[in-house]
Amino acid sequence: MDPVTLILFGATGDLAKRKIYPALYRLFVRGKLPEHFAVIGLGRREWTDESYRANVMQSVHRFSRSLPDDSGRLDRFLQSFRYCVLDIGREEDYLKLLQLIEQREEELNLPQNRLFYLSVGPEYFATIADRIRSSGLGSGKGWKRLVIEKPFGSDLNSARELNRKLSESFAEEEIYRIDHYLGKPVVQKLESLGQASPELRKLWAARRVANVQITANESVGVEERAGYYDHAGALRDMFQNHMLQLLMMAAAYLPGHGGYGQGRAAKKRVMEALRPLSKEQVRFHVVRGQYAEGWIDGSPVAGYASEPGVAPGSQNDTFVAARLHIDNDDWRGVPFYIRTGKRMKEKSTRIVVEFGEPIHPSGLPAQDGTEPNLLVIEIGPGESVSLQFHAKESGASGTFAPIIIGEHDDSADSPEAYENLIGDALIGRSTFFAHWDEVELSWMWVQPVLDAFEENLAPLHPYPAGSYGPSASDELPAQEGFRWWFDDPSEPETESNSKQGEPYAYYTNR
Amino acid sequence: MDPVTLILFGATGDLAKRKIYPALYRLFVRGKLPEHFAVIGLGRREWTDESYRANVMQSVHRFSRSLPDDSGRLDRFLQSFRYCVLDIGREEDYLKLLQLIEQREEELNLPQNRLFYLSVGPEYFATIADRIRSSGLGSGKGWKRLVIEKPFGSDLNSARELNRKLSESFAEEEIYRIDHYLGKPVVQKLESLGQASPELRKLWAARRVANVQITANESVGVEERAGYYDHAGALRDMFQNHMLQLLMMAAAYLPGHGGYGQGRAAKKRVMEALRPLSKEQVRFHVVRGQYAEGWIDGSPVAGYASEPGVAPGSQNDTFVAARLHIDNDDWRGVPFYIRTGKRMKEKSTRIVVEFGEPIHPSGLPAQDGTEPNLLVIEIGPGESVSLQFHAKESGASGTFAPIIIGEHDDSADSPEAYENLIGDALIGRSTFFAHWDEVELSWMWVQPVLDAFEENLAPLHPYPAGSYGPSASDELPAQEGFRWWFDDPSEPETESNSKQGEPYAYYTNR
Repeated sequence: MDPVTLILFGATGDLAKRKIYPALYRLFVRGKLPEHFAVIGLGRREWTDESYRANVMQSVHRFSRSLPDDSGRLDRFLQSFRYCVLDIGREEDYLKLLQLIEQREEELNLPQNRLFYLSVGPEYFATIADRIRSSGLGSGKGWKRLVIEKPFGSDLNSARELNRKLSESFAEEEIYRIDHYLGKPVVQKLESLGQASPELRKLWAARRVANVQITANESVGVEERAGYYDHAGALRDMFQNHMLQLLMMAAAYLPGHGGYGQGRAAKKRVMEALRPLSKEQVRFHVVRGQYAEGWIDGSPVAGYASEPGVAPGSQNDTFVAARLHIDNDDWRGVPFYIRTGKRMKEKSTRIVVEFGEPIHPSGLPAQDGTEPNLLVIEIGPGESVSLQFHAKESGASGTFAPIIIGEHDDSADSPEAYENLIGDALIGRSTFFAHWDEVELSWMWVQPVLDAFEENLAPLHPYPAGSYGPSASDELPAQEGFRWWFDDPSEPETESNSKQGEPYAYYTNR
Repeated sequence: MDPVTLILFGATGDLAKRKIYPALYRLFVRGKLPEHFAVIGLGRREWTDESYRANVMQSVHRFSRSLPDDSGRLDRFLQSFRYCVLDIGREEDYLKLLQLIEQREEELNLPQNRLFYLSVGPEYFATIADRIRSSGLGSGKGWKRLVIEKPFGSDLNSARELNRKLSESFAEEEIYRIDHYLGKPVVQKLESLGQASPELRKLWAARRVANVQITANESVGVEERAGYYDHAGALRDMFQNHMLQLLMMAAAYLPGHGGYGQGRAAKKRVMEALRPLSKEQVRFHVVRGQYAEGWIDGSPVAGYASEPGVAPGSQNDTFVAARLHIDNDDWRGVPFYIRTGKRMKEKSTRIVVEFGEPIHPSGLPAQDGTEPNLLVIEIGPGESVSLQFHAKESGASGTFAPIIIGEHDDSADSPEAYENLIGDALIGRSTFFAHWDEVELSWMWVQPVLDAFEENLAPLHPYPAGSYGPSASDELPAQEGFRWWFDDPSEPETESNSKQGEPYAYYTNR
């Protein structure tokens, strides 16, 4: 592993505290940091090395899932950390930073490998990249890499403009765009699912996929992010990035669908085959929603329009559902239903693959009356994969027979998304990042939807907080005779149904 | 060719006059009737053999496309015809008929091959079949066949009941259900299209089919059939039979899609793969319309509700459009759009196959910006097949470049549908008839649509006479980014557009 200096912009921020320091520490504990390693934290605040280290230590104690069991080890970890006050716009500060970097490289005998991590607002991305170039920070003799957080642009044009600016200072191969959904172990395991489960391979050979459903529901509302969120909406905040990346991963890597090669090309090819919508078509395939007041977990909650920081009469989307088609040989004719929303009945992120009729030797479906089998990939709150065989019942919603498989990766020492992603960036493995091709193609798909929302070509459906979104969302799969799986019916029969709906799976810790 | 006696129920009716006698005469002229041949016409009217022959002669003169050029020939033809008064319900009349048949068989030295042709209302089908059995008419030493006209049932149950009754007297192999769309030469030629046109084979290999459109528009209204039509509607009158048969023919026989074997099984397999709709799904995929008043060819015409014989406030459908999917390997992901209506802007029946993007070697679409190529099968008023290459233009609707191929079969001596069908029934070739499997599967698909219409689960859209149906019909293809081809825009630009839209095709008479 190459020795490296990690230069962290936004070192005093919330993301660094909650995710980056704990991830770095866990990499350290697991021997996944280079032996020679320096961190330079940057921020506007007048911290010292000592107060910075104290903050990092506190963060590790508070947010690291496996608590430090050895104070000597944490001390050694903290030795790598330095702090430098930096005003993002001031050129002189970068020269000061360069001096510090070179000093550390000399002290630790490090090659000039520099990983710049931008844990700051997107408005600073271009400026920082430019300063890195102009100050000579990026002209060391080793490699340089740029890790940036979302969002990457707010529409197709701004994303292209941002990429153009970054590309003046970094080559595409040097840019690591974080989408933390891609860091989740269960998502990364999609590719090897088929190897892990003979049952799944059999199912895939014997039955067609009827549809694929990707859900990312949150029960929280807009929280303190109204200022940002009211301009972004669910479409920019979740759909363009996380949801489409999950779609790419599912379509590129699910068993029997890995024929497009490994790595970067696989996801790009999915996006190239994604059937575009014109803005006039949007209303038929995309549902825009905004939460009204309602009840969650027995408590009343306010509607979006009443949230502090939200503009009066805001038409912002807090829910988006869409039906997409991938026009390639693997997925032609298989609808992908995607939805994401705030203030939903429950927090859950999952991919459900619903299998259809058995494949008849002649290539034609046989109608044998069996009910759907499901492959369920739970991404949050827990992570697991299970196969669920639906036994046909005369009852309303049927029951799930406890047939099988599954893997479950929720153990205390499973790597978290940021640990995976930072570890990959350190070794230069870009597989699980969002590449420019994908980002651009995502925005190209999303742009007509943005336009349709902007021009009110798609109605804004209110939905009660604590529901599963507007009824128009249920109609998307219903149009093809399907339904969103695992939605608790909110009627009085909730309790009995929630019992029936429980999957039975054998878990194996890894 | 087996000598045969044709026993025609409904010999004094309109269909016999317009279609059956002219077809028989043309078969006679072309040497496609057996040398020994008897016709026995049956009706309630008190005609004599002479008045019957006079009527047949008049019919041939008036409706035969190639006029009799030789009066001696027509006389010889008419010698075969006898008339017998028959009350469909009276057993004695069938015994009298049996005597006449046996007399003719003896006179002409015919084997007891008997073809019973039921050109009567569907309410008589079961009774006649039963009487044929009970009277011994069907117990001759030769073969027996039953040719029946539509409609075959008015819903799934009545169709099954009718079939059950018929099957007491005739085996399925003996029943020839006429769907005259299947008799049209251009429809029968679908199977050999690929052989006829290397250009078409190339196109099929190089491009995917984006969608298939089947249109059967009439400019006439309900005419004198209101009593029947107001109970049947476009769904029963056109869709369940003609439109679904055209869909079967297209899906089973278009080039590159003949992999399911010949004959009866091919169409049945299409229907088995047709994705069913539940009645709740109907409103998303089926558009129900009824014509209001409007203008056709410069003249005002009444709305359906004002037509004589139509029930006040009738909710009957005079227009149906639908989107269907065939879930087999050939057609998965290719929408079939079907529409049929009365009082449309123009009379036209056609199948349009729209080709999509070129097939990339990797199996993924390549975006090269070329515009759709079309295979256009004109079924009415004229019959022709042409390939139309759409040159990309910046203009609104684009123009068609006169690239090529085509065959045109509108010559005076081309066989008409009834000539083909009667000729086939005489030699026992059942390919181009509607078999029970197909009829039952058609009704199974249609039944939820009937239910949805009945229960008002799908709105009834009014449309002005002289239009292309309700705008909801345009939305069906628009949802996937397509449009109905060859609809003249009804705006002022009609004239210029109709010029642009003209196909250029080389015609070859056959």
